[in-house]
Amino acid sequence: MKLTEADSRSRLAAADHGVLCTLHQRRGVDAVPVVFALGEDDHLAVPVDVVKPKTSTRLQRRRNLETDDRATLLVEHWDPADWSRLWWVRAELRWLDAPSAAVVESLSARLVDGYEQYRHRPFADVLVFGIVGLTGWSAAG
Amino acid sequence: MKLTEADSRSRLAAADHGVLCTLHQRRGVDAVPVVFALGEDDHLAVPVDVVKPKTSTRLQRRRNLETDDRATLLVEHWDPADWSRLWWVRAELRWLDAPSAAVVESLSARLVDGYEQYRHRPFADVLVFGIVGLTGWSAAG
Repeated sequence: MKLTEADSRSRLAAADHGVLCTLHQRRGVDAVPVVFALGEDDHLAVPVDVVKPKTSTRLQRRRNLETDDRATLLVEHWDPADWSRLWWVRAELRWLDAPSAAVVESLSARLVDGYEQYRHRPFADVLVFGIVGLTGWSAAG
Repeated sequence: MKLTEADSRSRLAAADHGVLCTLHQRRGVDAVPVVFALGEDDHLAVPVDVVKPKTSTRLQRRRNLETDDRATLLVEHWDPADWSRLWWVRAELRWLDAPSAAVVESLSARLVDGYEQYRHRPFADVLVFGIVGLTGWSAAG
Protein backbone atom coordinates (compact mmCIF):
# COMPACT_ATOMS: atom_id res chain seq x y z
CA MET A 1 0.00 0.00 0.00
CA LYS A 2 2.57 2.61 1.04
CA LEU A 3 5.24 2.96 -1.65
CA THR A 4 8.94 3.22 -0.93
CA GLU A 5 10.61 6.54 -1.68
CA ALA A 6 12.54 4.93 -4.57
CA ASP A 7 9.35 3.54 -6.09
CA SER A 8 7.58 6.88 -5.60
CA ARG A 9 10.46 8.67 -7.33
CA SER A 10 10.47 6.38 -10.37
CA ARG A 11 6.70 6.69 -10.79
CA LEU A 12 6.99 10.48 -10.53
CA ALA A 13 9.77 10.48 -13.14
CA ALA A 14 7.65 8.41 -15.54
CA ALA A 15 4.45 10.44 -15.16
CA ASP A 16 3.49 12.77 -18.01
CA HIS A 17 1.56 15.33 -15.96
CA GLY A 18 0.28 16.09 -12.49
CA VAL A 19 -1.71 18.50 -10.35
CA LEU A 20 0.21 21.42 -8.89
CA CYS A 21 -1.20 22.87 -5.67
CA THR A 22 -0.20 26.24 -4.28
CA LEU A 23 -1.54 28.28 -1.39
CA HIS A 24 -3.84 31.24 -1.81
CA GLN A 25 -4.21 33.41 1.29
CA ARG A 26 -8.01 33.57 1.19
CA ARG A 27 -9.17 30.61 -0.89
CA GLY A 28 -6.77 28.10 0.63
CA VAL A 29 -5.59 25.74 -2.11
CA ASP A 30 -5.26 26.59 -5.78
CA ALA A 31 -4.85 23.42 -7.85
CA VAL A 32 -4.13 23.21 -11.56
CA PRO A 33 -3.01 20.44 -13.95
CA VAL A 34 0.57 20.88 -15.14
CA VAL A 35 3.26 19.14 -17.11
CA PHE A 36 6.67 19.00 -15.49
CA ALA A 37 10.23 17.74 -15.68
CA LEU A 38 12.24 16.07 -12.95
CA GLY A 39 15.90 17.03 -12.83
CA GLU A 40 18.98 16.13 -10.86
CA ASP A 41 19.42 17.08 -7.20
CA ASP A 42 15.67 16.73 -6.62
CA HIS A 43 14.78 19.71 -8.75
CA LEU A 44 11.44 19.81 -10.51
CA ALA A 45 10.30 22.31 -13.14
CA VAL A 46 6.83 23.42 -14.18
CA PRO A 47 6.77 25.49 -17.37
CA VAL A 48 4.61 28.55 -17.82
CA ASP A 49 4.15 28.13 -21.52
CA VAL A 50 2.39 29.92 -24.35
CA VAL A 51 0.98 26.68 -25.84
CA LYS A 52 -2.03 26.16 -23.60
CA PRO A 53 -3.94 29.45 -23.87
CA LYS A 54 -4.07 31.61 -20.75
CA THR A 55 -5.39 35.02 -19.90
CA SER A 56 -1.94 36.12 -18.83
CA THR A 57 1.49 34.62 -18.24
CA ARG A 58 1.55 36.47 -14.91
CA LEU A 59 -0.15 33.53 -13.24
CA GLN A 60 -1.85 33.26 -9.89
CA ARG A 61 0.36 30.26 -9.06
CA ARG A 62 3.44 32.50 -9.16
CA ARG A 63 1.79 35.18 -7.00
CA ASN A 64 0.86 32.44 -4.52
CA LEU A 65 4.44 31.14 -4.43
CA GLU A 66 5.81 34.61 -3.82
CA THR A 67 3.64 34.75 -0.68
CA ASP A 68 4.09 31.10 0.43
CA ASP A 69 6.79 28.95 -1.16
CA ARG A 70 5.16 25.62 -0.26
CA ALA A 71 3.64 23.59 -3.09
CA THR A 72 2.52 20.03 -3.75
CA LEU A 73 2.52 18.00 -6.96
CA LEU A 74 0.27 14.95 -7.21
CA VAL A 75 0.58 12.36 -9.96
CA GLU A 76 -1.87 9.49 -10.11
CA HIS A 77 -3.01 6.47 -12.02
CA TRP A 78 -6.78 6.20 -12.38
CA ASP A 79 -8.66 3.16 -13.59
CA PRO A 80 -12.46 3.44 -13.33
CA ALA A 81 -13.03 -0.31 -13.69
CA ASP A 82 -10.22 -1.80 -11.60
CA TRP A 83 -9.46 -0.04 -8.34
CA SER A 84 -6.77 -2.58 -7.49
CA ARG A 85 -4.60 -0.77 -10.06
CA LEU A 86 -4.86 2.71 -8.51
CA TRP A 87 -1.77 4.50 -7.27
CA TRP A 88 -0.59 8.02 -6.58
CA VAL A 89 2.60 9.83 -5.67
CA ARG A 90 2.73 13.18 -3.88
CA ALA A 91 5.81 15.42 -3.93
CA GLU A 92 6.12 18.07 -1.25
CA LEU A 93 7.84 21.04 -2.90
CA ARG A 94 9.51 24.34 -2.08
CA TRP A 95 9.61 27.01 -4.75
CA LEU A 96 13.07 28.36 -5.55
CA ASP A 97 12.73 32.02 -6.44
CA ALA A 98 16.26 32.33 -7.83
CA PRO A 99 17.38 29.02 -9.38
CA SER A 100 20.74 29.07 -11.17
CA ALA A 101 20.77 29.58 -14.93
CA ALA A 102 22.30 26.11 -15.28
CA VAL A 103 19.44 24.47 -13.41
CA VAL A 104 16.84 26.36 -15.46
CA GLU A 105 18.62 25.42 -18.70
CA SER A 106 18.93 21.76 -17.74
CA LEU A 107 15.27 21.50 -16.73
CA SER A 108 14.12 23.40 -19.83
CA ALA A 109 16.04 20.92 -21.98
CA ARG A 110 14.27 18.06 -20.20
CA LEU A 111 10.90 19.67 -20.88
CA VAL A 112 11.79 19.94 -24.57
CA ASP A 113 12.84 16.27 -24.56
CA GLY A 114 9.72 15.18 -22.72
CA TYR A 115 7.02 17.00 -24.68
CA GLU A 116 6.75 17.21 -28.43
CA GLN A 117 4.69 20.39 -27.97
CA TYR A 118 7.74 22.11 -26.42
CA ARG A 119 10.08 21.55 -29.35
CA HIS A 120 10.41 25.29 -29.92
CA ARG A 121 10.72 26.18 -26.21
CA PRO A 122 7.61 28.29 -25.91
CA PHE A 123 8.27 29.09 -22.27
CA ALA A 124 7.31 32.44 -20.81
CA ASP A 125 8.73 31.22 -17.53
CA VAL A 126 9.85 28.06 -15.74
CA LEU A 127 8.93 27.58 -12.09
CA VAL A 128 11.63 25.61 -10.30
CA PHE A 129 11.03 23.67 -7.10
CA GLY A 130 13.06 21.55 -4.74
CA ILE A 131 11.50 18.25 -3.63
CA VAL A 132 11.48 18.06 0.17
CA GLY A 133 9.28 15.01 0.61
CA LEU A 134 7.85 12.10 -1.37
CA THR A 135 4.86 9.97 -0.41
CA GLY A 136 3.26 7.24 -2.47
CA TRP A 137 0.37 4.82 -2.24
CA SER A 138 -0.69 1.87 -4.32
CA ALA A 139 -3.85 -0.22 -4.02
CA ALA A 140 -1.83 -3.31 -4.92
CA GLY A 141 -0.36 -4.45 -1.63
CA MET B 1 -10.77 29.53 -22.41
CA LYS B 2 -12.56 30.43 -19.18
CA LEU B 3 -15.64 28.23 -18.71
CA THR B 4 -18.99 29.53 -17.55
CA GLU B 5 -20.17 28.43 -14.12
CA ALA B 6 -22.92 26.31 -15.74
CA ASP B 7 -20.41 24.58 -18.01
CA SER B 8 -18.03 24.05 -15.08
CA ARG B 9 -20.85 22.52 -13.04
CA SER B 10 -21.90 20.08 -15.75
CA ARG B 11 -18.31 18.93 -16.31
CA LEU B 12 -17.88 18.47 -12.56
CA ALA B 13 -21.09 16.44 -12.40
CA ALA B 14 -19.92 14.18 -15.23
CA ALA B 15 -16.41 13.57 -13.89
CA ASP B 16 -15.69 10.19 -12.33
CA HIS B 17 -12.94 11.30 -9.94
CA GLY B 18 -10.84 14.26 -8.91
CA VAL B 19 -8.04 15.46 -6.67
CA LEU B 20 -9.07 16.62 -3.20
CA CYS B 21 -6.77 19.17 -1.58
CA THR B 22 -6.84 20.00 2.11
CA LEU B 23 -4.57 22.14 4.27
CA HIS B 24 -1.92 20.73 6.55
CA GLN B 25 -0.52 23.21 9.05
CA ARG B 26 3.13 22.42 8.40
CA ARG B 27 3.28 20.80 4.95
CA GLY B 28 0.86 23.20 3.29
CA VAL B 29 -1.27 21.24 0.83
CA ASP B 30 -2.23 17.58 1.12
CA ALA B 31 -3.62 16.32 -2.19
CA VAL B 32 -5.16 12.92 -2.85
CA PRO B 33 -7.23 11.38 -5.67
CA VAL B 34 -10.84 10.77 -4.69
CA VAL B 35 -14.15 9.70 -6.10
CA PHE B 36 -17.11 11.90 -5.23
CA ALA B 37 -20.79 12.60 -5.72
CA LEU B 38 -22.42 15.92 -6.45
CA GLY B 39 -25.75 16.47 -4.72
CA GLU B 40 -28.45 19.10 -4.60
CA ASP B 41 -27.93 22.52 -3.01
CA ASP B 42 -24.26 22.48 -4.05
CA HIS B 43 -23.33 19.67 -1.71
CA LEU B 44 -20.48 17.38 -2.61
CA ALA B 45 -19.51 14.13 -0.88
CA VAL B 46 -16.20 12.27 -0.73
CA PRO B 47 -16.45 8.77 0.71
CA VAL B 48 -13.95 7.34 3.11
CA ASP B 49 -14.36 3.78 1.99
CA VAL B 50 -12.97 0.37 2.83
CA VAL B 51 -12.52 -0.62 -0.83
CA LYS B 52 -9.26 1.13 -1.60
CA PRO B 53 -6.92 -0.15 1.12
CA LYS B 54 -5.73 2.40 3.69
CA THR B 55 -3.67 2.28 6.83
CA SER B 56 -6.55 3.69 8.82
CA THR B 57 -9.99 5.16 8.20
CA ARG B 58 -9.00 7.99 10.55
CA LEU B 59 -7.54 9.90 7.65
CA GLN B 60 -5.21 12.88 7.59
CA ARG B 61 -7.66 14.68 5.31
CA ARG B 62 -10.25 14.66 8.11
CA ARG B 63 -7.74 15.90 10.67
CA ASN B 64 -6.80 18.69 8.25
CA LEU B 65 -10.45 19.68 7.79
CA GLU B 66 -11.02 19.80 11.53
CA THR B 67 -8.24 22.42 11.70
CA ASP B 68 -9.08 24.30 8.47
CA ASP B 69 -12.40 23.69 6.72
CA ARG B 70 -11.23 24.96 3.31
CA ALA B 71 -10.75 22.37 0.57
CA THR B 72 -10.44 22.26 -3.20
CA LEU B 73 -11.48 19.59 -5.69
CA LEU B 74 -9.92 19.58 -9.14
CA VAL B 75 -11.25 17.51 -12.04
CA GLU B 76 -9.44 17.51 -15.34
CA HIS B 77 -9.29 16.09 -18.80
CA TRP B 78 -5.80 15.15 -19.94
CA ASP B 79 -4.77 14.26 -23.49
CA PRO B 80 -1.03 13.79 -24.00
CA ALA B 81 -1.23 14.12 -27.79
CA ASP B 82 -3.73 16.92 -28.27
CA TRP B 83 -3.45 19.83 -25.85
CA SER B 84 -6.31 21.65 -27.59
CA ARG B 85 -8.63 19.19 -25.81
CA LEU B 86 -7.43 19.91 -22.26
CA TRP B 87 -9.83 21.28 -19.67
CA TRP B 88 -10.20 21.44 -15.91
CA VAL B 89 -12.73 22.50 -13.31
CA ARG B 90 -11.88 23.57 -9.78
CA ALA B 91 -14.44 23.61 -6.96
CA GLU B 92 -13.70 25.70 -3.91
CA LEU B 93 -15.19 23.82 -0.95
CA ARG B 94 -16.05 24.24 2.72
CA TRP B 95 -16.23 21.13 4.88
CA LEU B 96 -19.50 20.69 6.79
CA ASP B 97 -18.70 19.02 10.09
CA ALA B 98 -22.32 18.25 10.92
CA PRO B 99 -24.33 17.63 7.72
CA SER B 100 -27.91 16.50 8.19
CA ALA B 101 -28.67 12.77 8.04
CA ALA B 102 -30.85 13.42 4.98
CA VAL B 103 -27.97 15.05 3.11
CA VAL B 104 -25.59 12.22 4.02
CA GLU B 105 -28.15 9.62 2.95
CA SER B 106 -28.89 11.35 -0.34
CA LEU B 107 -25.20 11.72 -1.20
CA SER B 108 -24.41 8.14 -0.13
CA ALA B 109 -27.16 6.92 -2.48
CA ARG B 110 -25.60 8.92 -5.31
CA LEU B 111 -22.21 7.33 -4.58
CA VAL B 112 -23.80 3.87 -4.77
CA ASP B 113 -25.46 4.83 -8.07
CA GLY B 114 -22.26 6.28 -9.47
CA TYR B 115 -19.77 3.56 -8.63
CA GLU B 116 -20.28 -0.14 -9.12
CA GLN B 117 -17.65 -0.72 -6.40
CA TYR B 118 -19.92 0.95 -3.83
CA ARG B 119 -22.91 -1.33 -4.38
CA HIS B 120 -22.71 -2.58 -0.80
CA ARG B 121 -22.06 0.85 0.75
CA PRO B 122 -18.62 0.14 2.16
CA PHE B 123 -18.33 3.60 3.69
CA ALA B 124 -16.50 4.15 6.94
CA ASP B 125 -17.36 7.81 6.62
CA VAL B 126 -18.62 10.38 4.12
CA LEU B 127 -17.03 13.81 4.06
CA VAL B 128 -19.60 16.42 3.04
CA PHE B 129 -18.69 19.79 1.58
CA GLY B 130 -20.49 22.86 0.35
CA ILE B 131 -19.35 24.32 -2.97
CA VAL B 132 -18.55 28.03 -2.52
CA GLY B 133 -16.87 28.67 -5.87
CA LEU B 134 -16.44 27.11 -9.31
CA THR B 135 -13.76 27.95 -11.85
CA GLY B 136 -13.12 26.24 -15.14
CA TRP B 137 -10.74 26.44 -18.06
CA SER B 138 -10.68 24.86 -21.47
CA ALA B 139 -7.95 25.02 -24.10
CA ALA B 140 -10.63 25.14 -26.79
CA GLY B 141 -11.57 28.80 -27.12
